[in-house]
Amino acid sequence: MQLLEERIRRDGIVAPGNVLRVDSFINHQMDMELLDKLAEEFYRLFCHERVDRVLTVEASGIAIAALVAQRFRVPLVFAKKSKSSNIPDTVYTCPVRSFTHGNVNTILVTKDYLHAGENVLLIDDFLAHGEALRGLADVVLQAGGHVVGAGILIEKSFQHGGDALREAGMRIESLARIAAMSPEDGVSFL
Amino acid sequence: MQLLEERIRRDGIVAPGNVLRVDSFINHQMDMELLDKLAEEFYRLFCHERVDRVLTVEASGIAIAALVAQRFRVPLVFAKKSKSSNIPDTVYTCPVRSFTHGNVNTILVTKDYLHAGENVLLIDDFLAHGEALRGLADVVLQAGGHVVGAGILIEKSFQHGGDALREAGMRIESLARIAAMSPEDGVSFL
Repeated sequence: MQLLEERIRRDGIVAPGNVLRVDSFINHQMDMELLDKLAEEFYRLFCHERVDRVLTVEASGIAIAALVAQRFRVPLVFAKKSKSSNIPDTVYTCPVRSFTHGNVNTILVTKDYLHAGENVLLIDDFLAHGEALRGLADVVLQAGGHVVGAGILIEKSFQHGGDALREAGMRIESLARIAAMSPEDGVSFL
Repeated sequence: MQLLEERIRRDGIVAPGNVLRVDSFINHQMDMELLDKLAEEFYRLFCHERVDRVLTVEASGIAIAALVAQRFRVPLVFAKKSKSSNIPDTVYTCPVRSFTHGNVNTILVTKDYLHAGENVLLIDDFLAHGEALRGLADVVLQAGGHVVGAGILIEKSFQHGGDALREAGMRIESLARIAAMSPEDGVSFL
């Protein structure tokens, strides 16, 4: 999506270690007029599907996911992250490795908030190695639900997390797909 | 606000230790049609003020704050929580004690995202002892900004966090104000 790509070119900062900082308009500070347009685009892409629920993971995915759920008029659920190994049996869980932070979090969703037979749309800000998205899809499957697809703001395609998920049949719509990036040369898109 | 009070009576769960669980409609799972109406009410209450920015704290305040910022067509900033004592000097910080979790977090906002002379509306889901709200107001003041007021979904008035802040001149609009609650008798409102 040209709007988002232009904004990333203008305001995104490529830091060492394949980190793209979009703190000034998507994370931490959020340009709500931009996010509104991005949510509208996700709605356009998925509005022909039955969507019963939107699922994201805390914290930076919550705002865009809320705007998408608002348009579909369905509940939003956000998976919580926990470092604790003391997990009650009232939740679905999946371990999720963070390549950025070099650790493993467990994502949790209370069983009451995912249901068998429901169509769930996954929304997140980033897709890199695909661990968070895989974890979200996993808890939906544990509940007997169906993943309609995933709406991603920024996919770091060069890290290939989307490839395996697409090969496994997941529909992934990324509004900006980064082919390559470096602090010296900036960002180039697919 | 009657709509929210009725929903709390119906779906809120009072747990020991003065904990009100609203996980099924405000936190974790969010009823977006309800949140939309609550955001509209905050807009109605504050729309005669100049609001340049909405500020909340991660994670559960982000969705309602996003819907409010959407209506005002202003940026949303969420303060991050950190347990680390290794804080760069590019951020405003304030220690915030959590009575629920019995610990102290530092809330952080990057200096680029708060500006002198700006009018900031604070939004959060809960007001209990007032620590988070005091911390948010503090970082706005550090930046030379002005707090227009605070929009709170649920105020536990019996914990009196709002009293000192109101006495200090902060306009606080809480959509539901709890006078007393217990697992046996449920919730009563002011």
